[in-house]
Amino acid sequence: MKMIEGGVCAAKGFRAAGMHCGIRKDKSRLDLALIAADRECAAAALYTTNKVKSAPIYVTRDNLSDGRAMAVVANSGNANACVTGGQDAARKMCAAAAKALSIKPEDVIVASTGVIGQPLKVEFIEAGIPELAGKLEASAKGANDAACAIMTTDTFKKEAAVEFEISGKTARLGGMAKGSGMISPKMATMLCFITTDAAISAKMLETALRDITDRTFNCVSVDGDTSTNDTVAVMANGMAGNDEITSEGADFDAFKAALLTVCTSLCRDMAKDGEGATKLIECLISHAPDEETARVLSKSVINSSLVKTAFFGADANWGRILCALGYADAPLTVDKVKIELSSPKGTILVCENGQGVDFSEEKAKEILLENEIKILIDLHDGDAEGAAFGCDLSYEYVRINGDYRT
Amino acid sequence: MKMIEGGVCAAKGFRAAGMHCGIRKDKSRLDLALIAADRECAAAALYTTNKVKSAPIYVTRDNLSDGRAMAVVANSGNANACVTGGQDAARKMCAAAAKALSIKPEDVIVASTGVIGQPLKVEFIEAGIPELAGKLEASAKGANDAACAIMTTDTFKKEAAVEFEISGKTARLGGMAKGSGMISPKMATMLCFITTDAAISAKMLETALRDITDRTFNCVSVDGDTSTNDTVAVMANGMAGNDEITSEGADFDAFKAALLTVCTSLCRDMAKDGEGATKLIECLISHAPDEETARVLSKSVINSSLVKTAFFGADANWGRILCALGYADAPLTVDKVKIELSSPKGTILVCENGQGVDFSEEKAKEILLENEIKILIDLHDGDAEGAAFGCDLSYEYVRINGDYRT
Repeated sequence: MKMIEGGVCAAKGFRAAGMHCGIRKDKSRLDLALIAADRECAAAALYTTNKVKSAPIYVTRDNLSDGRAMAVVANSGNANACVTGGQDAARKMCAAAAKALSIKPEDVIVASTGVIGQPLKVEFIEAGIPELAGKLEASAKGANDAACAIMTTDTFKKEAAVEFEISGKTARLGGMAKGSGMISPKMATMLCFITTDAAISAKMLETALRDITDRTFNCVSVDGDTSTNDTVAVMANGMAGNDEITSEGADFDAFKAALLTVCTSLCRDMAKDGEGATKLIECLISHAPDEETARVLSKSVINSSLVKTAFFGADANWGRILCALGYADAPLTVDKVKIELSSPKGTILVCENGQGVDFSEEKAKEILLENEIKILIDLHDGDAEGAAFGCDLSYEYVRINGDYRT
Repeated sequence: MKMIEGGVCAAKGFRAAGMHCGIRKDKSRLDLALIAADRECAAAALYTTNKVKSAPIYVTRDNLSDGRAMAVVANSGNANACVTGGQDAARKMCAAAAKALSIKPEDVIVASTGVIGQPLKVEFIEAGIPELAGKLEASAKGANDAACAIMTTDTFKKEAAVEFEISGKTARLGGMAKGSGMISPKMATMLCFITTDAAISAKMLETALRDITDRTFNCVSVDGDTSTNDTVAVMANGMAGNDEITSEGADFDAFKAALLTVCTSLCRDMAKDGEGATKLIECLISHAPDEETARVLSKSVINSSLVKTAFFGADANWGRILCALGYADAPLTVDKVKIELSSPKGTILVCENGQGVDFSEEKAKEILLENEIKILIDLHDGDAEGAAFGCDLSYEYVRINGDYRT
């Protein structure tokens, strides 16, 4: 398996485009993305567990009930959530995309992201889609424009893709995602769309997506807020020519490994670009009694405002890390816990057997001034491991969210 | 019942004092508090549910196993948590206090607050206690000094007291508490000590404390981090002369009402003085199916970083409030939810039936620029109610916690 360029257009048989249609006031920012498959795809998606769900989630869920899809249409600048007529607007987006692509509206995945509670001006989207369909390209540029069109407070686009072998055939899988606030996904992240030319049944696609999402998107947290719009969707068109994956086995494992690689890359980017973030923080837990425990504990550390602000200040305040482990809803044998802090500048031991050890504050500062930090926690309590991805909490997060709407 | 002055010295038969003993480097700040009862008290306490607990919690729990106590000794500047020899140090604090007061070490409640993971210089405390015991006063000044000596990042001391009638006798109940970060108590808050001259059995005292704590301290959140040191302790010396409360009934209800009033006042102060806070935010939920649902939902709103930053920016971003209700672990009928924002400048409706309504942004801004804001949520789904107390998230929180330790 190797990382490649091309995002959602890396796999054969997918075209993408982005445009400014008018949802955003700033004309320099793209606000509408379209991804089109050349042939019918097996498709699966997971959605936010928030009881307040955006309107497009209901429409997409209906449309994917047959496990088939051919396109994605998504806008930024407005969440289409908590408004009257939201589902009508989402259906109009599907209808417009279907008309432009000569497919059925039921084969369109629809999503929105942006401010909650303000009516979506769907007429801008309907007016823009014919032009957008004309821009579709099976190229890195098409993928790039689509990835840019779903950005909100993101400071860079998130794309990843891999090439891998599956039953002797070369397949590709790529995706795009957006962050970067209201990120504490449960079942799915804000918005993420993945395409692949591997042949796989809709059922196995959903199984793979569920497993990999638990290990990636559900382990990212920027601010502990689970959005109303979280959606991760994947479309597989089978053009790689491999025997269709319909059960577990080596081919399914190869597919999952590719999906894991792309999703992990997108998650790290999402955490790194968390609102106001100056640092990517990864919490890696080893020797846990089970994977679920490792995930719950690592997410608790990543979510702690006190841990996050300490890293912003490059302060090796490990007591806050131990504290966050202690209040997590998971078993913990405190007096076995070992904590190390690591970055490209080195690794330093700060806590052993649940108690502080002497360390060089100078060396710790040097390590923590880097912009990618790993918190290494050894529980000495089993063989499982797990990781969570997050970022620091900065003045900039407060500024961004103090006046996001106005 | 009426609010009175005097904090932990408001009730008959309690003396208090505070001093600088050397745990803090800054000599202008008190760091050691002592509260002494003139006679043996029924006593009860609740502690953090964090699995990482400070050493004094283990010692206090032992000492209170007989439901009796006569004194409290507490220091700030060091949490005495996650260090070797922590329990020995806590026992030395009890022994020194007991010697100076001519009581048994087992009758002393001990607590610490401050940085985690650095050894406590207990010799400073042992050396200071004789002088501190000499300063004990049954006065507002004594109570004030003790309240000041447990402050960490608090910007003002927290005291409250009431006078109330109980079986024809006048009784008093007063307390002191500290915030102001790592505040998301579960079972108890950072540190809170309450004294009363009411006569009540240790068993009924604990029952009352547990009930009131659920409705007050367990509904405060500054940053969602549950501390390692949370302790709330209450001592009752019986000097008011009422018939001892040994069961439920009118006297017990009167006592609980007094305890509720004092704890609510301390909680509001704690939220208002949350690290970096510019506003007190109360989330009041009405017409909930049950009290537990109301509490879980209101805490979710109060805990949301996105809600907190919106209030810092005086932005009526109600979508984030609805979103936080939606991801809480409690039932919610989204399309019944009504949300109003309120302050001394007025009340404004922003959401009805789970959807936005037109409102004047100008009026909303005027309301939200005040420093005490109420979020009024009507679930239209039952008869229960509940409230949570919190604060906004400001640049100052990030500054305080970016370099707390160094």
